[in-house]
Amino acid sequence: MMKCPRGTRDFLPADMERRRTYESVLRDAAHRFGFKEIQTPIFEDADLFILRSGPNIMKELYAFKDKGDRDLALRPEMTAPVIRAFVNGMSNEPRPVKVFYFGQCFRYERPQSGRYREFFQFGAEIIGSDTPESDAEAVALAVHMVKALGLKDYRVRIGHIGVLRQKLADAGVPGDRTAEVLQKLDKKLYDEAGPLLRGIGVSDEDVQGIFALTETVGGLDVLDKISGEARESLKSMTNALIAMGVKDLEVDLGVIRGLDYYTGMVFEIEAPILGAEKQICGGGAYSLSELFGGEKVPSTGFAVGFDRALLVLEKEGAICSVPGVDAYVVPVSDAVRTDALKIVSQLRMAGVSADVDLMDRKMSKAMKYAASSNARTVVIVGPREMKEGTVTVRDMSTGSQEKIPLLELAGRYAD
Amino acid sequence: MMKCPRGTRDFLPADMERRRTYESVLRDAAHRFGFKEIQTPIFEDADLFILRSGPNIMKELYAFKDKGDRDLALRPEMTAPVIRAFVNGMSNEPRPVKVFYFGQCFRYERPQSGRYREFFQFGAEIIGSDTPESDAEAVALAVHMVKALGLKDYRVRIGHIGVLRQKLADAGVPGDRTAEVLQKLDKKLYDEAGPLLRGIGVSDEDVQGIFALTETVGGLDVLDKISGEARESLKSMTNALIAMGVKDLEVDLGVIRGLDYYTGMVFEIEAPILGAEKQICGGGAYSLSELFGGEKVPSTGFAVGFDRALLVLEKEGAICSVPGVDAYVVPVSDAVRTDALKIVSQLRMAGVSADVDLMDRKMSKAMKYAASSNARTVVIVGPREMKEGTVTVRDMSTGSQEKIPLLELAGRYAD
Repeated sequence: MMKCPRGTRDFLPADMERRRTYESVLRDAAHRFGFKEIQTPIFEDADLFILRSGPNIMKELYAFKDKGDRDLALRPEMTAPVIRAFVNGMSNEPRPVKVFYFGQCFRYERPQSGRYREFFQFGAEIIGSDTPESDAEAVALAVHMVKALGLKDYRVRIGHIGVLRQKLADAGVPGDRTAEVLQKLDKKLYDEAGPLLRGIGVSDEDVQGIFALTETVGGLDVLDKISGEARESLKSMTNALIAMGVKDLEVDLGVIRGLDYYTGMVFEIEAPILGAEKQICGGGAYSLSELFGGEKVPSTGFAVGFDRALLVLEKEGAICSVPGVDAYVVPVSDAVRTDALKIVSQLRMAGVSADVDLMDRKMSKAMKYAASSNARTVVIVGPREMKEGTVTVRDMSTGSQEKIPLLELAGRYAD
Repeated sequence: MMKCPRGTRDFLPADMERRRTYESVLRDAAHRFGFKEIQTPIFEDADLFILRSGPNIMKELYAFKDKGDRDLALRPEMTAPVIRAFVNGMSNEPRPVKVFYFGQCFRYERPQSGRYREFFQFGAEIIGSDTPESDAEAVALAVHMVKALGLKDYRVRIGHIGVLRQKLADAGVPGDRTAEVLQKLDKKLYDEAGPLLRGIGVSDEDVQGIFALTETVGGLDVLDKISGEARESLKSMTNALIAMGVKDLEVDLGVIRGLDYYTGMVFEIEAPILGAEKQICGGGAYSLSELFGGEKVPSTGFAVGFDRALLVLEKEGAICSVPGVDAYVVPVSDAVRTDALKIVSQLRMAGVSADVDLMDRKMSKAMKYAASSNARTVVIVGPREMKEGTVTVRDMSTGSQEKIPLLELAGRYAD
């Protein structure tokens, strides 16, 4: 039997209904915050992702040549495509440009709980502004989204990549070695970061200081332990967040986010219930457009891992039910089958979701189908009732039946 | 400058808003008709599409090997994946299974007006029923969708693949040559079909009879020119369609639909305004599940070419405007910037789409941004007004201003 490819999934109707419901919640949140949707192609020139993430990304890319010998890749993330689209078509728009996106991304990696080869990201970008208010706006939307989805237990951790970069520079790490060191520190691989730093010539004391910095976590008071531009920027940002009603922030100077292109504030939201793979959202301030041939434009953005967020909701016991049609129309005999078609058609034109037996089935079988597909009511069409211009409506949750004039039928579903 | 790959498109916010609006129209129509959404992966085993469409499809496929040496392909259409998903996970559901889908498909072909390498299809399948009512339901939904989108000029042409198949068999065309002949006739390539048929040994008279059949077009009276099962099935189907209020059907025995797997009724909807590439919807009755390892299950389905349908709407002058936020909050000075953040946050929590200047701009610049982004109102926050607990709301369409108590602000947007 043919199956879907490893690491991908079919979403059958019950699942899909649930996913669309949560997608709408995120979409609604983005609209409320004044973001507008953008959509980019499923594949791009492979170079786009290498420019953003470095050549290491190739290992995880679904890369291929098209029949015109172009090197293409399925998108592994959507920030690079969105910024490319901005450079191509939105660079003259009033700033900031506030956009959001939702769609499939692809990574070739070992499938595991909450990790798929085809996965979904919902993200937002504020392009063209580098103020603390912009950073705050991105964090506020991310937190609002997580709350609106109904997640119960989550942590918001905010850091600033400038603090650690400054510390590394002060300790004598040259600029061209910084990315390498940050990648080890991002994964808390101290066993590897130690020898690396000492090899560069960093003193033991500074190595310990660097490690301690990446473990510095706490409330807003942590900001008093740092200084300079990073401190001022984070102070202003957290003040803006407080004005926007976002509380319970943690400052975590160990939030590094692996990638080279972050320039300032970085943040993550995690759901402890997921265990080791607990991150459900990540983002920060960055600059990317100049890599794609545009001018340098400061931006702040984030992405929510949609599949992981839904996994949290499932583990937390959130329930999302799948509604059936409002009205399932059942003719009691062949004599009124055409009447049943007319009635179902009229209901649909009036905006009522309605269905009818399409398989010439007897009434009892049709009633069974209506029940198993969660129809809310059944409209029973009989020859005698048709003559007097009525139908019988059965409420499938209570079992109560009611005779209703045909002229009033659609109105019954109006609320 | 990096661009999106040839034949693909970025959808910027104005475009995207329009596309989502029309997508909702189609989605709403499908729900009303009792269809439920299904989603399948962007890529599949390449074999899936070859089984459905024959090896010729390879020329148009974006096919590639993954890092595990699997032969994959981006989906060129979604009927095969949906039926595969049905075989894998829905074959025990009560029949018929009524599903719809919307998403990207991919074909490597020369880009031209209304034809892209990445394009969008909205389709529906009724799986597990082979009654004329099921055929009617599919056509009724397709026609309802086209009407609901607001298309002005379109033609619905219905045929039955059985009529021509029977004619070919009667004329002595063996079963294993039928597909080849049908493909020529589908494209009206009579110059090629003639020699082909004569080479098989079909008489000149029969060749002319076959050609005449493929040119037989008219109203429901055309059904009187044919006989057998096809006639009975189409009669019952058109009667059901009439009961469902679907009129103005053409019967066109030349509707062939190119593919081998159609088994009965076939139909197309075309929009003459598009010229040569005028087909916007096509479908019919088919059987596909047995090719993917399932039992044989009769089905009827169709797909709407979303990009082409939108092109028709554009050519017909349909207008779909992009709304801005309900409220753009502007502080008159830095002293009330935090108050502005609090107000925008409160509006958002109350369900109002609201935005605020994030770039420390002066009032005049912020007002300009509000106007250029189509904000419906501007909420002006001043120090004096804040003391008395009011703000000034300016209606951007009329220019009129009104002082409103803060406590009543969200309520102003409630309608």
